Amino acid sequence: MQQCGSAVRSLKPGDPVALEPGIPCRICEYCRAGRYNLCPDVQFAATPPHDGTLAKYYTIPEDFCFKLPANISLEERALVEPLSVAVHCAKLARITFGSSVLVLGVGPIGLLCCAVARALGSSKVIAVDIVDSRLLFARNYAATVTYRMESLSPEENASRIMSSTGIGEGAEIVIDATGAEACIITGIHALKRGGMFIQAGLGAAKITFPVAQLCSKEGSYRGSFRYGPGDYRIAVELLKQERISVKELITHRYDFSEAEKAFENVEQRHGIKSIIYGPDTNQ
Amino acid sequence: MQQCGSAVRSLKPGDPVALEPGIPCRICEYCRAGRYNLCPDVQFAATPPHDGTLAKYYTIPEDFCFKLPANISLEERALVEPLSVAVHCAKLARITFGSSVLVLGVGPIGLLCCAVARALGSSKVIAVDIVDSRLLFARNYAATVTYRMESLSPEENASRIMSSTGIGEGAEIVIDATGAEACIITGIHALKRGGMFIQAGLGAAKITFPVAQLCSKEGSYRGSFRYGPGDYRIAVELLKQERISVKELITHRYDFSEAEKAFENVEQRHGIKSIIYGPDTNQ
Amino acid sequence: MQQCGSAVRSLKPGDPVALEPGIPCRICEYCRAGRYNLCPDVQFAATPPHDGTLAKYYTIPEDFCFKLPANISLEERALVEPLSVAVHCAKLARITFGSSVLVLGVGPIGLLCCAVARALGSSKVIAVDIVDSRLLFARNYAATVTYRMESLSPEENASRIMSSTGIGEGAEIVIDATGAEACIITGIHALKRGGMFIQAGLGAAKITFPVAQLCSKEGSYRGSFRYGPGDYRIAVELLKQERISVKELITHRYDFSEAEKAFENVEQRHGIKSIIYGPDTNQ
Amino acid sequence: MQQCGSAVRSLKPGDPVALEPGIPCRICEYCRAGRYNLCPDVQFAATPPHDGTLAKYYTIPEDFCFKLPANISLEERALVEPLSVAVHCAKLARITFGSSVLVLGVGPIGLLCCAVARALGSSKVIAVDIVDSRLLFARNYAATVTYRMESLSPEENASRIMSSTGIGEGAEIVIDATGAEACIITGIHALKRGGMFIQAGLGAAKITFPVAQLCSKEGSYRGSFRYGPGDYRIAVELLKQERISVKELITHRYDFSEAEKAFENVEQRHGIKSIIYGPDTNQ
Repeated sequence: MQQCGSAVRSLKPGDPVALEPGIPCRICEYCRAGRYNLCPDVQFAATPPHDGTLAKYYTIPEDFCFKLPANISLEERALVEPLSVAVHCAKLARITFGSSVLVLGVGPIGLLCCAVARALGSSKVIAVDIVDSRLLFARNYAATVTYRMESLSPEENASRIMSSTGIGEGAEIVIDATGAEACIITGIHALKRGGMFIQAGLGAAKITFPVAQLCSKEGSYRGSFRYGPGDYRIAVELLKQERISVKELITHRYDFSEAEKAFENVEQRHGIKSIIYGPDTNQ
Repeated sequence: MQQCGSAVRSLKPGDPVALEPGIPCRICEYCRAGRYNLCPDVQFAATPPHDGTLAKYYTIPEDFCFKLPANISLEERALVEPLSVAVHCAKLARITFGSSVLVLGVGPIGLLCCAVARALGSSKVIAVDIVDSRLLFARNYAATVTYRMESLSPEENASRIMSSTGIGEGAEIVIDATGAEACIITGIHALKRGGMFIQAGLGAAKITFPVAQLCSKEGSYRGSFRYGPGDYRIAVELLKQERISVKELITHRYDFSEAEKAFENVEQRHGIKSIIYGPDTNQ
Repeated sequence: MQQCGSAVRSLKPGDPVALEPGIPCRICEYCRAGRYNLCPDVQFAATPPHDGTLAKYYTIPEDFCFKLPANISLEERALVEPLSVAVHCAKLARITFGSSVLVLGVGPIGLLCCAVARALGSSKVIAVDIVDSRLLFARNYAATVTYRMESLSPEENASRIMSSTGIGEGAEIVIDATGAEACIITGIHALKRGGMFIQAGLGAAKITFPVAQLCSKEGSYRGSFRYGPGDYRIAVELLKQERISVKELITHRYDFSEAEKAFENVEQRHGIKSIIYGPDTNQ
Repeated sequence: MQQCGSAVRSLKPGDPVALEPGIPCRICEYCRAGRYNLCPDVQFAATPPHDGTLAKYYTIPEDFCFKLPANISLEERALVEPLSVAVHCAKLARITFGSSVLVLGVGPIGLLCCAVARALGSSKVIAVDIVDSRLLFARNYAATVTYRMESLSPEENASRIMSSTGIGEGAEIVIDATGAEACIITGIHALKRGGMFIQAGLGAAKITFPVAQLCSKEGSYRGSFRYGPGDYRIAVELLKQERISVKELITHRYDFSEAEKAFENVEQRHGIKSIIYGPDTNQ
């Protein structure tokens, strides 16, 4: 049964919300300092030992529910979470109006990074991938220009990216959404002096990393981990203002009873995003 | 002959100064934005094709001369340059009062990084090296605690650093002054969540880098390149206020005519800093 | 005669450019640190003793010329300067996606601040003025909501702004483009906790200022002076990407020979922006 | 009876601690973003309707207790609170090594601001007051130079401060600990271009404020309200490292039974700090 605790003030049963699925301890030094995504005691849904949200009812504190306006559909709501991942990357990268942004890998997170970069006014949003069909999608979706990785050295690929996409001395911001060594090295070589490289997600355990190349530019290489204060709010705002559209990313839909098939589908890398409908929801 | 240009206002012939030896173009986007150390057209002394300052007279713009107070001796003046390198690292690392700082490698730059960290009020300044005598020097000079690298995996060395030096979950700031793979990996493992790793100098061309380890902490890995606006001023101030002593770093002194021997001595890693006296200066 | 100096690399005679009209000394501590708008020796066009740009030919360094793409018309070019003022305000205010921004006074600078705030993705852009027709223009141009100042105390006006425009506890950012005491006090009262108040332009010499009100919120009150590194580039980019339209701000046009009339017109506060055509340009 | 809740991990009964006396809600947007001093629902000791800590036992969450090392005496512990106020001011002011800092009013908070500025390596710490004996104390305690306000205009006092204390174009940072109009105006005039003015505490309700003077320098005027994440930790660290001494600020001591006299003493502005001993503590 849908219900709210007696102390809840901003929500009532039935309100459409997006859930931020990691509840931090609120008392450690990270939580106190506004970096709750680093809380060592966070209870993050679907990260063992914590169950995920794939259930008929789910209990979550009020301040991790984000009320949604009517112009955001049920399916779009489900994409507030990955969109918040991209928003967090953009915030760490300090993407601002006029930035040049290179995104390596245009799966769901890479595409959303392109979309956020574009919405924030980046001048150049360069999508890089190895699959032509993905690049075509990226170009129609949010990238201003694309580059298909060739069977060449990372240095050579970087050099071609810089000469063919008009970024000259490199991109101010590079976001890698692949975690793959060849892409990361390419990105470091295509980074502008003083630039910021954001690793979206965890990346490979270990890679061969061109330290001197990064350092001679005084570049930064930084991990982005989940999302923090304000990211969900901005993700909702991007959808509300219609600066970003996420509908076209949803390529597969499943009933609650078919949930396992959805996971298999993702594992086989079919389409972009698969949605599982709740037990009482109609597609 | 010592002389000043007619437009010089703040200096007169004979004033003791420290020279900042890289003259940027002053018009590129980096110069305009206050990041002149990234100027692609900088003329940096002793970086080919530009000659170094090893000469009787040297011409340099007024604003790259930093007037020195009387309490800074001739020999100390010569160390304003490496001290500025350490100041720049500390600035990029955002070392502040109460920081925990791990410094890998305690050659001249590593020692100066320890000294700057201590002067800025760091609670813990942990010096790491493979040579006991260097660690002893570091401990007497500026480190609050030391650790000798063992013939163990970087993970294991990091684990021992954290348990033996009282930094618990890792150091907020790690500065590597070795460029060596084993040290860099150790430092990444000993970095606290949300921490900042500064690579002082260029580091190795390529190393095996534990990407996932850095990213799961949302850590930053950043190069530090030379020095920028304000760094020389702060280096001079540190000496003037006597917050840092650099005299004990000078282990060898050479006449101008023996300059080559000084370079050989550095190459053989004897002592810490070698000073070459100018043609008309008395030791 | 149009010509370029022999060292000019990025421009050729005839290229359309916007001019950034203040040439700093490039050597003082402000210039070195990337805050050249604070240079005490800046030569700013039309600020005595320096002549303005109202001339057939004007000599200016290459790096203070910003090349314009073909989709920016001659008249729009003339508005890059005031647009850069608004960009600088937005940068100091750290306007970002989802910000709530209150703009007091919707003359040319206030309108451009509204437009920049909107282009950067602000959720709420609240225009405040005393003239209904200006508010109507602002609403059609860039504000999301407007408020007409009433003959009430600043506290009461602030209270009505907060309750009628949906910003609840106040605006995260307030920009005052009036310099008038009543507006500034109103803005302080309508500022959210921890918010940033930007004074565009110089404001009144002295006003009665509600210190305790600002301080109990730990708010900041900051002046914005002209423009600095990157502001012109972003202004050009906003026009190029068509995120902002400035054509509708041009209400009066004058021939070079009628220049004085243009100044009189501005003094009488007719319309929004008056354009003076150069001696050889056709309207 | 001294006791700890069952979930407390870092403390045991009898541990010496400093108490941070404002407990925020931990769920509002300010708390989530690491600015809990702005929490509208904070329960701050001695701010009605909340009782103060003047009691034999006081219940407070673990994370608002800061364990103290043995080298900090009982009396010094009591001054961690005002020291944290000064630390927070210094953080907002971004005082760093080599800063020039002007402190207006050297009562307890002003003196502690001087001490923190000095500990952080400020080059110049200028104490300003109207009472010679206070200035003498400040000079011996932490200021590098002092200035006694004269019966002159604020402009003239500012001019004399700048010429007599060696700060030339003004202080990079001004901290006002008086709240008085004449001091605030003086401070604005003695602020360097691009400088930061921090209002410690609330200041007067309203003052005549030289807006144009602040804005022509692109200066910031910012309130500092209590303390936030990390401030207590740094205050404790300053005492632990003996970078700051607070003993000499304690001029009066009272038994618990005489508490009212202590408040009367403060009201009459006798001495600097008055300490009330707890019911079971021996002086």
